[in-house]
Amino acid sequence: MKIIIDTMGSDKGMEVIVKGTLDAMAEKDFYPIFCGPEKELVKFIPKELIENDKLAIINAEDVIENTDEAALAIRRKKESSMVKGLRSLKNDEADGFISTGSTGALLAGATLIVGRIENIDRAALTVSIPGVKNPTIVLDVGANMDCTPELIRQFAIMGTCYAKTVFNKSNPTVGLLNIGSEEGKGDTLTKESFQVLSNEKLNFVGNIEPRDILDNDVDVIVTDGFNGNIMIKTIEGVASTIMSLLKEGIMSSTMTKIGGMLVKPALGGIKEKLDYRNLGSAPMLGSKKPVFKAHGSSDSLAIKNGIFQLIKFIEDDVINEITDIMRGE
Amino acid sequence: MKIIIDTMGSDKGMEVIVKGTLDAMAEKDFYPIFCGPEKELVKFIPKELIENDKLAIINAEDVIENTDEAALAIRRKKESSMVKGLRSLKNDEADGFISTGSTGALLAGATLIVGRIENIDRAALTVSIPGVKNPTIVLDVGANMDCTPELIRQFAIMGTCYAKTVFNKSNPTVGLLNIGSEEGKGDTLTKESFQVLSNEKLNFVGNIEPRDILDNDVDVIVTDGFNGNIMIKTIEGVASTIMSLLKEGIMSSTMTKIGGMLVKPALGGIKEKLDYRNLGSAPMLGSKKPVFKAHGSSDSLAIKNGIFQLIKFIEDDVINEITDIMRGE
Repeated sequence: MKIIIDTMGSDKGMEVIVKGTLDAMAEKDFYPIFCGPEKELVKFIPKELIENDKLAIINAEDVIENTDEAALAIRRKKESSMVKGLRSLKNDEADGFISTGSTGALLAGATLIVGRIENIDRAALTVSIPGVKNPTIVLDVGANMDCTPELIRQFAIMGTCYAKTVFNKSNPTVGLLNIGSEEGKGDTLTKESFQVLSNEKLNFVGNIEPRDILDNDVDVIVTDGFNGNIMIKTIEGVASTIMSLLKEGIMSSTMTKIGGMLVKPALGGIKEKLDYRNLGSAPMLGSKKPVFKAHGSSDSLAIKNGIFQLIKFIEDDVINEITDIMRGE
Repeated sequence: MKIIIDTMGSDKGMEVIVKGTLDAMAEKDFYPIFCGPEKELVKFIPKELIENDKLAIINAEDVIENTDEAALAIRRKKESSMVKGLRSLKNDEADGFISTGSTGALLAGATLIVGRIENIDRAALTVSIPGVKNPTIVLDVGANMDCTPELIRQFAIMGTCYAKTVFNKSNPTVGLLNIGSEEGKGDTLTKESFQVLSNEKLNFVGNIEPRDILDNDVDVIVTDGFNGNIMIKTIEGVASTIMSLLKEGIMSSTMTKIGGMLVKPALGGIKEKLDYRNLGSAPMLGSKKPVFKAHGSSDSLAIKNGIFQLIKFIEDDVINEITDIMRGE
């Protein structure tokens, strides 16, 4: 299995991306194709891996920045690591692609270069939130603004396929992110989407309030990309603030320091449950070939886990499942 | 100062509302007017308070439910505690009104019965999030769906007045809730609102990501009511889940239990910082007279704090400040 790794666009630099990939290679069998400035990259890669053809490098000198206008950058920056990597994926030179770069550019690239599955109008950024009872798949969490009920419907179908294949759910439940649990709540988009989802062959269970986002039984939650992004960034912010306050509180006196050492095993479990690094990466569901987004501030552990998720996604053949269902429409 | 307290619509029953009010009376001088079924209410109120005219009761036998269609209920349920209480406020029989009932109905009532400040098109539910560095005022957090840039602009002006008067900020900073910090990010509403806010006489500091919601320096954050509600319910859900996990973890072994006792002072501070009961209540900013919403699941402490916030809001004369500014437009 060949995986293209975009080494540019990370907040932490390419060394971290390379290290995460090498760590992943130590645990799983795959062939990495690094995409980035070769001269720089070779500094971080052991020579024997290159000499023994354990990996490849696609030289790309340009980078797409977060501040670039996404679609324009994909069209114009032909020498960027993202564009060159996605072209290589499109040309069947690899089985999957992962990048820490701009979400908007990655979506534009997945659409303009790789292409979408038939009858899917937009690819959606899809995360799996660990939660207390059950992991919940949420889409879209940031790729598509100003969604329509039809897009929400497509997200629901794709999310259901993903839950079936990767998470082994036989009849995944689907919820709609909304500000109240009762039917009739919400803005125009959610009210109309509720009706559309009710009429679809899905295991639709109604509205889900974000209050229950870490503690629910639902397998798939669908939402407009703006709202989904607001939600996941709030989760991230609140979890990180609480953890800092906790650390600060524990360090405030000798007594609390001793207490902190004793409760450490309990704290570790929570951090583990909420740590985005364990989420690792998120597929652009709807793309014709596996395109994964990893967090811009991913460390090497997050990169390693992200690659593992991409490998599982390829093995479970999610894209074929979605393609078959959408073809039947 | 006379305060009307709607005793219906609470998740916890009217006894809790009465207790919170009596607790508030023990600490601050005000005259409560309970609105609800008199026969029931008198069971929870010490006789001497009624006999010595320390409070009054407006008898109201009907209740507006969360499932009622908001505007319709306000128009038709004339014997409900919310409608009778708001009418009494409108008729200058009191200085402020507080309810744990349906947010939608309260907004409809504030608009249809009490009326809006001149040049304000919608009242906005406004909370103050404690945060680590600085309390942040956020509006709208659930009253208005499908907002326009003009509404967002009005929210910014009202929030600025609120921050000046109640929170003593001399030149309050205003941020726009968005999925990215750069200009040009977001959906159509946020992109257009960014332009409108930039052209306004406000201390506008740009986009604020929800990642920083508990840890920022901004005084006022404006948002569409749907997104604002998604955000505050996510904060509530994540904080409550983490606290439960923490408790569970601490109770899991003798060692962690001992540790838990030692770190308890540190944990208490965090709970305090994030506890919605300390937020207490939220004004419907834009209403001609003070109308406050308290959380449906408020306990007596939350009710007490909610009444205190309402009293401060009346004393600080926020409504006159907004009225003056909006009249100048």
